Formats: sequence, structure tokens, C-alpha cells
Amino acid sequence: MTREIPLVQTGTHGREGSAPERSLQLTQVVEWNDGQVHPHEDALAAEEPLEIRIGQNPLTVTMRTPGHDSELAAGFLLTEGLIEEAGQISALLPYVTTAGGKSNGVEVQLQDCEFDPAQIQRNFFAASSCGICGKASIDAIRKRGLRAPSGDFTVDPELLCALPEKLRSAQTVFGHTGGLHAAALFDSAANLIVLREDIGRHNAVDKVIGWAFLQGMLPLSEHLMLVSGRGGFEIVQKALAAGVPVLASVSAPSSLAVQLARELGLTLVGFLRGRRFVIYSGALRGTASTV
Amino acid sequence: MTREIPLVQTGTHGREGSAPERSLQLTQVVEWNDGQVHPHEDALAAEEPLEIRIGQNPLTVTMRTPGHDSELAAGFLLTEGLIEEAGQISALLPYVTTAGGKSNGVEVQLQDCEFDPAQIQRNFFAASSCGICGKASIDAIRKRGLRAPSGDFTVDPELLCALPEKLRSAQTVFGHTGGLHAAALFDSAANLIVLREDIGRHNAVDKVIGWAFLQGMLPLSEHLMLVSGRGGFEIVQKALAAGVPVLASVSAPSSLAVQLARELGLTLVGFLRGRRFVIYSGALRGTASTV
Repeated sequence: MTREIPLVQTGTHGREGSAPERSLQLTQVVEWNDGQVHPHEDALAAEEPLEIRIGQNPLTVTMRTPGHDSELAAGFLLTEGLIEEAGQISALLPYVTTAGGKSNGVEVQLQDCEFDPAQIQRNFFAASSCGICGKASIDAIRKRGLRAPSGDFTVDPELLCALPEKLRSAQTVFGHTGGLHAAALFDSAANLIVLREDIGRHNAVDKVIGWAFLQGMLPLSEHLMLVSGRGGFEIVQKALAAGVPVLASVSAPSSLAVQLARELGLTLVGFLRGRRFVIYSGALRGTASTV
Repeated sequence: MTREIPLVQTGTHGREGSAPERSLQLTQVVEWNDGQVHPHEDALAAEEPLEIRIGQNPLTVTMRTPGHDSELAAGFLLTEGLIEEAGQISALLPYVTTAGGKSNGVEVQLQDCEFDPAQIQRNFFAASSCGICGKASIDAIRKRGLRAPSGDFTVDPELLCALPEKLRSAQTVFGHTGGLHAAALFDSAANLIVLREDIGRHNAVDKVIGWAFLQGMLPLSEHLMLVSGRGGFEIVQKALAAGVPVLASVSAPSSLAVQLARELGLTLVGFLRGRRFVIYSGALRGTASTV
């Protein structure tokens, strides 16, 4: 009852890449509009599970929108604290999973031949569970070696206000379905560097960071990250893992996100809409105020 | 730099309960508005980790908004397929976790003395990873024993259109912060039965279902569930676990959500806004059309 749209792959990286094949599915729906019933074809954001394994050892399964899977796997390993350098990865191998015959797996091969899967599992568990209160979580983050973003990157508030519209106009899949989150990197002149979309907020961020990681661009000390959804704890954690100095969102941050951003010196902006935003942590040039 | 608001606990269950204590934190922020800078106090949606354990065995940690934790734990166990009957639970015991001194844990005690933690862990892993393609996922769901919702519950489109406003007006915490998702149950006359809010979409759904589960109301074959966010695969899965026949959302569903809803006969409505909605699966009385 659904069929996939073979969208043109617009590149596995770079400014233009945001609409890989298998991102959308067309299907028949029935619209009710003020009492009138209207059957038509509608586009759905694709959601499929992706298995990430280290060599032959399964690590995790995440529900994601297909596309940029290798970047997602690389970004996930970095932002969850399992690896620190792109050089630790010797290969990223997409594989076809048995059921369905689709490429819904990425095998990550690491350089270290002494690699211990049990150690990775322990680290991963520690990163996922991350303590039982905010304090313990932040202590755990510190133990992972996350540091304050380096450099003196600053943002012009006028340029900042222009970013949500740039994000929206680059969100090709979102335009069709209204169902995808987006994350994007911008430079200090508000140029869009890379944008990724996914049904999962965390995955969109991991795809963006994974792309930059594989390009050798980390730490991202001269970049700003904008996310379409909320700025939660894990999004702040991922931004810090990539060395991003400024994280902006069009919606609200959580209490723990603000706490972590303040402790580690990340500038956190929320409710970036029109000519207004709220600074929850850090400072911007031109605002003359520091939270 | 933040302080908690000791909101009055408005009840652990029922129509009125949506703003438990510790749901909000006040903090100092700086607002930038068209070039003017304005420091003020702002409310943040609280986010803290909750550990759920079965007896003394840790099961999972979820980032959630504090409040209704026992319902969250009970709902999580049900919707992830770990238990089937409320009678299997002999006690739900909130406990204070060592770091921070806050109640950020729930211990679930089960009736079955022959309980095998390794078996639960295996089941849980199976439920979480849920296959590697949509087909395998849906097969796994079937193996869990999820069935088509029973009964002949139908919805009047006019009543359906009234639900988002009822949801919004009952969302007390959201009104303060803009940062929380909501899930709610309604009966066929569009009466709000229960509403829960959380920083995580899945948690809001688990809190609602957990409340009904502990009330002995399952299967919820005479109820409709409305969620504030998107209707993804896992939300559909949770609705099916509770026997909900109609799931509505104000936003878009995913491809896999639609596929699962169609396979198991759940009515799935999206983009419920104003006097318009889209039926992705099943039928409503009065629409004269079935997807």
C-alpha cells in the first residue's frame, strides 16, 4: 500500500545534501476537511531501524530515516563517547540485513586490533545511562573528557535571527511531510555548511556531527549548530562532544540541558523565532549580557 | 542558578493530574528582542534520569520529567511487552538514588517468585531492537501477541476536531515552558480522562497507559489517545499494547507507524488541526471512507 520514492541522491555530504533516496514513501490517505472527505496520495517520512555493529558485535539499533547511515554511525560513536578520533575508524561498511533485503546496517571497523567488545559495551552503557541525577550525569560527562568549547567564536544576533529561515528552506524532505527533524551547521557568517534530516532529533544531530567528524573538521570551534526541535540534555552532550561553541534551537531547552551547558561553557539559545531569542547559557557578541 | 518550583501536586491520577512537583525549574535568562536585551526569570521543563529496576536488577534509565514515576514504570513494562497484567505487579516503590538525594528510581516488584532477570533482559532487548526492517519489526510485534484493537469504537469527526484545544488547555506545564509533550485519553464523548506531560514523547504515552493499566482499565477499547507530537512506530506499538483503537496526533506519522497501524487495524489520524485531519489507517464514522 506504500511505495518508495526514488529521490535523486543529492550527495553524501556537503551543502546540498539533504534528500537521500528512501527518505519518503507515498501512500493513499483520506483527508477530512470541514466535513468534506477527500482521498489523495500523501508523502510519509520514512522510518526504518538501523543496526550499528562494531566488527561482528551488535552495538545498538536506532529507528532512523534512511540515508547518510555511515555518517550517523560515525557520529553516534563519537557523541556517545565510544571513539574520539576519526582515525580510529578503518572502515564504515553498509550491509543488507536479512529481513527485507534493505541496507539497514552499518558495520564499523576500528583500527585497534586489541579492541574489546565487552569494554565498548560497558562504555556504551555508561554513556547511555549517564547517572541517576543531573549531578551524577554531569560528573559522568566530565569523566568522559568533555571540555568547554575552545576559541572565541561569537555570533551576531542579526545573523542568528536569519538562520531558522535558512534551515527551513533547505529542509527538502520536511517540506513534503512535516515529519522530520533537522540539524544544521553554520559558520560565523551564517553560511549553511551541512544540513541533515531525520525522524529522530538525535539522529539528525549525529548525522551532522558524523559528517564533520569524517571530514576531519572537529572540533567545530568556529561553527554554530541549529536544531529544529528542543534542546535537551543529550543534544547538548552531543554538541559538546563535537566542540560546538553555540547551540541554538527554535524551541525550549530542558533544565538539565541548561545546567550542562552552563557547567561546560556552551552558549545555549532557545526560542529562536523571528527577531527574538532567549539566551540560556553563555553570551553572544552584541548582547552585552552573560547568563 | 536554578531553583525548583514546589508546585502543588494535583493528584497522582485522574482528570486533574498534570502538574506534579519538580516539573518546572525557574532560572535567569537573557532575552534578545529586535536588538533590545532583557534579563528575566524563565521556567524550564525539568529533565532528570529515572532508573527503573525489577527487584534489585536495573532494567533501564530514561530521561524524563519528574512526576507520575510509578505510572511511567508500569506503563513502560506493559508497552515494552515485559508484563501483560497489572496483577503481575505486587509493588511499585519509588526510591531515592544516592547521587543528588532525589527520588529518581522506581523499583518494580513482581508476583512471580520464579522471575528470571536474564529472561527479562532478553525480552527487553528483543522489544527495544525490534528487528532490522519494518517487516521484521512487525513480525516481532506479532510474536509479542499484540492484536487488533477489539470492539467497534467509532469517532465523530466533529468531536475529534475539538480534542487538540482540550489537550492544550489542560497542559499546565506546557503553558509555562513550551517544552513538554503531552498524551491524553478521551472517551467517545470527547471527555478528557487523563493527561500526562513529559519531556519525552514516549514517556508521556507510558504515563497515560500506565495510569489506565494500574486502574484496571485495559484494554482501552472505548478510548481514543491523542499525542502532541508525531505518531512514530513506537507510539503506535504502545497504543496497540494498551488496546487503544484510535490514535490521533497533531503532527505527521512515520511510514513504519502507518504500516504497523494498517497491519493491526489501528485507526491512525494525523495533522489534527482546526477543522481538518488526515486518516492514515482505518476509518471513522461519518467519513464514508476507509484507508
